[in-house]
Amino acid sequence: MNGLHALFKPTGIAIVGASEKVTKIRGRLLKLLVDGGYQGNIYPVNPSSPVIQGLPAYPNVAALPDIPDLALIAVPAQQVMQVLEECARKGIKAAAVFSAGSAADPVGSRLQDQVAEFSQRTGLRVLGPNAEGFIDTINRVIATFSPTMQMSSPVKAQGPRQGYVSIVSQSGAMAFALYSRACADYLPIGHLVSTGNEADVECAEVIDYLIEEGSSRAILLFLEGFKNPARFVEVAQKAAAAGIAIIVAKVGKSTAGQRATVSHTAHLAGSDMAYDAIFSRYGVIRVDDPEEMIALGSVVSAGILPKGKRVAIITTSGGAGGWAADICEEAGLSVPELHPDFKAHLRGIIPDYGSAENPVDVTASVVEDGGVTLMAILKEVAGTEGIDIALVIVSLVSPERLGQIEAPLSALLSGMSRPMLFHSPGTSHDSARRILMQAGSAQLNLPVFARAMNKLADYSDFLERRRPASSKTGQPQPTVTAVPYHRDLLSDTDALLDAYGIARPAEALVRTPSQAVAQAQRIGYPVALKVISERVPHKTEAGALALSLATDAQVAQAFEQVVANARNYANDPSIDTVLVQKMMPPGRELMVGGIMDPDFGPMVMLGFGGIYVEILRDVTLAPAPLALADAHAMIDRLKGSSLLRGARGEAASDVDALAGLLVATSHLLNDAHQDIGELDFNPVIVYPEGQGVAVVDSLIVKKTIVPEQATPACHTATAAGG
Amino acid sequence: MNGLHALFKPTGIAIVGASEKVTKIRGRLLKLLVDGGYQGNIYPVNPSSPVIQGLPAYPNVAALPDIPDLALIAVPAQQVMQVLEECARKGIKAAAVFSAGSAADPVGSRLQDQVAEFSQRTGLRVLGPNAEGFIDTINRVIATFSPTMQMSSPVKAQGPRQGYVSIVSQSGAMAFALYSRACADYLPIGHLVSTGNEADVECAEVIDYLIEEGSSRAILLFLEGFKNPARFVEVAQKAAAAGIAIIVAKVGKSTAGQRATVSHTAHLAGSDMAYDAIFSRYGVIRVDDPEEMIALGSVVSAGILPKGKRVAIITTSGGAGGWAADICEEAGLSVPELHPDFKAHLRGIIPDYGSAENPVDVTASVVEDGGVTLMAILKEVAGTEGIDIALVIVSLVSPERLGQIEAPLSALLSGMSRPMLFHSPGTSHDSARRILMQAGSAQLNLPVFARAMNKLADYSDFLERRRPASSKTGQPQPTVTAVPYHRDLLSDTDALLDAYGIARPAEALVRTPSQAVAQAQRIGYPVALKVISERVPHKTEAGALALSLATDAQVAQAFEQVVANARNYANDPSIDTVLVQKMMPPGRELMVGGIMDPDFGPMVMLGFGGIYVEILRDVTLAPAPLALADAHAMIDRLKGSSLLRGARGEAASDVDALAGLLVATSHLLNDAHQDIGELDFNPVIVYPEGQGVAVVDSLIVKKTIVPEQATPACHTATAAGG
Repeated sequence: MNGLHALFKPTGIAIVGASEKVTKIRGRLLKLLVDGGYQGNIYPVNPSSPVIQGLPAYPNVAALPDIPDLALIAVPAQQVMQVLEECARKGIKAAAVFSAGSAADPVGSRLQDQVAEFSQRTGLRVLGPNAEGFIDTINRVIATFSPTMQMSSPVKAQGPRQGYVSIVSQSGAMAFALYSRACADYLPIGHLVSTGNEADVECAEVIDYLIEEGSSRAILLFLEGFKNPARFVEVAQKAAAAGIAIIVAKVGKSTAGQRATVSHTAHLAGSDMAYDAIFSRYGVIRVDDPEEMIALGSVVSAGILPKGKRVAIITTSGGAGGWAADICEEAGLSVPELHPDFKAHLRGIIPDYGSAENPVDVTASVVEDGGVTLMAILKEVAGTEGIDIALVIVSLVSPERLGQIEAPLSALLSGMSRPMLFHSPGTSHDSARRILMQAGSAQLNLPVFARAMNKLADYSDFLERRRPASSKTGQPQPTVTAVPYHRDLLSDTDALLDAYGIARPAEALVRTPSQAVAQAQRIGYPVALKVISERVPHKTEAGALALSLATDAQVAQAFEQVVANARNYANDPSIDTVLVQKMMPPGRELMVGGIMDPDFGPMVMLGFGGIYVEILRDVTLAPAPLALADAHAMIDRLKGSSLLRGARGEAASDVDALAGLLVATSHLLNDAHQDIGELDFNPVIVYPEGQGVAVVDSLIVKKTIVPEQATPACHTATAAGG
Repeated sequence: MNGLHALFKPTGIAIVGASEKVTKIRGRLLKLLVDGGYQGNIYPVNPSSPVIQGLPAYPNVAALPDIPDLALIAVPAQQVMQVLEECARKGIKAAAVFSAGSAADPVGSRLQDQVAEFSQRTGLRVLGPNAEGFIDTINRVIATFSPTMQMSSPVKAQGPRQGYVSIVSQSGAMAFALYSRACADYLPIGHLVSTGNEADVECAEVIDYLIEEGSSRAILLFLEGFKNPARFVEVAQKAAAAGIAIIVAKVGKSTAGQRATVSHTAHLAGSDMAYDAIFSRYGVIRVDDPEEMIALGSVVSAGILPKGKRVAIITTSGGAGGWAADICEEAGLSVPELHPDFKAHLRGIIPDYGSAENPVDVTASVVEDGGVTLMAILKEVAGTEGIDIALVIVSLVSPERLGQIEAPLSALLSGMSRPMLFHSPGTSHDSARRILMQAGSAQLNLPVFARAMNKLADYSDFLERRRPASSKTGQPQPTVTAVPYHRDLLSDTDALLDAYGIARPAEALVRTPSQAVAQAQRIGYPVALKVISERVPHKTEAGALALSLATDAQVAQAFEQVVANARNYANDPSIDTVLVQKMMPPGRELMVGGIMDPDFGPMVMLGFGGIYVEILRDVTLAPAPLALADAHAMIDRLKGSSLLRGARGEAASDVDALAGLLVATSHLLNDAHQDIGELDFNPVIVYPEGQGVAVVDSLIVKKTIVPEQATPACHTATAAGG
């Protein structure tokens, strides 16, 4: 068990600042704890009265007759430190500090630093400040003042298969907002922890505690940013090993500042993409909105994940079924042909004017016999092959629809090996939602259903890949480099790239037109010319490159032109060095890059090049180093990946060579992450299967030690793109 | 008034098949009509009993003591035609046929044809068959058997500004599903019409009726396809003129069959894109899911549209505010800096640890004084400038939050000139939703809020553009063509394109290597060679083109090669014609195309070329002919449009020239739509501002009269792409 046992499973609880008035935070805290049925001793602490809410109260912490594990501190911010010191002196092991003030304002910020120092010094673990507390519905510890607790009642996990879902949130309001939504949908919430400003205890550590505690099957995490990103990476791996799903809402995409950068790669990445990369690598499921978060919790709680993306849609309304099919396909699910046996059986059950084709229109008439026909249909759906998910569309406006088949429906669902979920096109009655959740299903709105299933199928695939026996697994292997990495390699990009086996087209540096012609003849026509200068990092806009030169005369003339353009652009008459490079035949243009994320370290980027890269941002990021399987997964995450794999009759590209380049680049980044700031291979031309890739242009930006100085762009040894 | 007055505002109603049993459709129909408070005479018709549900009943239609306008027919499908004939003989003017059977099954299909013929012959207007009836809550005509009516109660439009929303649906189940959701959200529904199989009355005609009837401010349309697309186009224009929003769910994207086609354009279009094009042209708002449909109805019903996309987010929870900002920006809204005066005023109201920056974190403390501070904040928000939409995020879990400020909130909202909407991160109490709707606001989930506002701002812009006084307006102008269109032009594509002023690069047809060299010298190097043959429509895969040829020797050699490749590919040794074309310098590659949509006629397509076109489908379609403003709107609908307009420091492209090409192409398509099946200009190279466009390759597919024969590809006069 990690060190949070005293915080979350305390033997006794002191409430410092407890009040008689239950309309106030300080009174509600005590009342909720008592009403919640906490089994340990409760000690109200307040000098104003010897009895508070019927319990003996104490004037201060020192006067307590016993040493409780935990103190809940609801005194004004100015008194918090004094109370904490008293707690430490008393031997109390943990505290939750509710007092307000965010880390961003002066008062809150000072308290933040003081609490951090205090906790470090005394070992007393502190939740908050500015936390809204925590709850444990299983052991009945309700340590919060949130009024939501008086309006939303938690339910227990039901039946042999349902598991608890817990909520961990840096925002107190979001913690209880999710809680109220979960309760309204009869989702069994085990723990809820509002971590507030995280002066000491941070969300990753809380998740770690919940994994060890063992009652949670899914953790809903509302996140603004990690205090200790590396700790989260560890915890995410532990959760994956334990089969506990972390479902995360990471906010702050829109406000994430874009760092000033030289390379394309860093500009495209932004800090939020690094979170996506980490989440993707470690099987953390990212959600887009609160409703989706609850939906994912519901399905995971029910204990069965979809093993793929094939949906059978069973609908009492053809119109709703058509809409569902559209929404499913839009979200990346498939609505395939169903098994002939299933269709034959179904035709024997449904009216002639129905349809046994997916989406299966069983017609509204099947619900008119008290549920007998509906159950017969659902049994057929449960038994058929070739699908991963069943979606049943039926009106749940009335409580009777499911009420009359509650027992057989529960029995059917508990025996199923894949999810069967329900959608009511109109409103859904409270009791219908309860019956479904307790039977291991849920009522979901269509877009949420589609997105949730898509993500859970990916998560299921992730869990499958990480099994030791899986053929899909891939652990990063050290790349065999020609020369081990050492910092001197940075002074010669050619040697660095050679060391990692990253090949470039034939090329030579020249300083005169006649040298250019001689080298062009040696390399073979056509060639490209490119000015090499730190003052001209992006050649296209400077007119500092010439492509497809086919004759000696063209080369000589182009040399004069590009040098003149570059001198003019950079206002630097000393520019004279030009790279002559083999003009590579056209192929798919991609870019491979590297950034050093301040939170998560070296990351490899892959994206399509050309005009769309900036606008559509079809780029993907992954933490270095990469195993070959990781590199293939990166390629598959591109929206345009099917193009590389040979979609629509196009020739397949050499994805194996591209994956190899990604792995090599990832090792370079990992080895040199102390020295390199950014890396761009752009364009990387990918040729048809078996014909390799060409790194046509490269830019490596070294880390600089002088912070105020412009980052120097390292000599770009290979070149011909822009 | 159109001809549906007798159907929807009947003086009297006969219910044929009416039954005593209110659990059955035939009994419920009568009961709902009576309970709903219908003011005209009601005549149950059933030979089994002289009194049904306390009303005098009649053995058949002929026996009725009076001639009601409308008959509701709920007899078995086999008896429907007989009853309809009786109705016609009696002089009844309209009927609604509830009996089942879809147009797709044999029984339903026969009934469908019989009803269509009957209606044509007698002039008796028929709703259905397979309809679920209609309701008019304002005049209290409840002509349906839907059990939803017993569970959902409609509300009246409130206050001076709220307007009614009506539902028109080809799916009966979806009609009442939307109705139940609308009622749960206190959205005032005026009319609901389930049009069923539309043997006679179709949804476009119903919308026309509703526009003339005048009580609807928005119409929610659930659509599978139009019986008469041209009628819908007329009605949509009428709705726009009347300021009535049509909010449509068009289903069937995923099942829309892709026609077998020769050109890229038709392949990319699919039939669903034509609907998007028509909706976009006529200001019809398309939704993605039921929740969004209700949300849009709510906001339109409240009477104020957003005039732009700038959102001020006012939140009691920083976490929820951050999430909202992410979701808004993702959906295309902006969350801008707020006015300095607003920020200054707000700082005087909110605690120090709040933030006056957008999203404005007013902190949870502002709701602790009975709503006084919250109202003060909302007044500041209502009064500030520089925003188009206010989003207030506050917990509505409890009924008290808004209950205590109902009167001042209503007063504030009724005086606002832009929408102020609310979001409760947790659940929202029923009474809070009621208060908001009645005050002209709504509680919306975040993704739905963001998508709805984005669409309504576009709709508002559409309404603005169609005002006669608007400078943004654009009516299609006849293009001045060199030669008026006549069918003979099709035999010479060059003449056809010249007639419409569509210029191509310099070129010549040749049949020998020496001719090729001579023409290349005349045109000027570099050149491209391309084999011209109907057997080789796509040159790249046949190896039938050669690019960037720079010398006589290269041209001569390439001639032999491309001819050999093409002969081999097409297995046709007679191929000998090659086009020599000026090799155009690189630029932005787009494609312009044309299709003849079976529903909506000639359509122009615009898309980015290159590798992404197939995968990302960044293409847009618009009905021909285009005004210049339409052409610019098409360009702006591309995801990559900002690139053409000069985003991220790139040079702006010549969008005016591109728009001109679109207009010319649209007139060509419009003039020649009887003769042309498909048209492809691919690639169209767009050069920097002022430097024009080049139609590098063109393919025109003539319409063929023999249906079984392969569509012949017309000679591709200009060429060099693939």
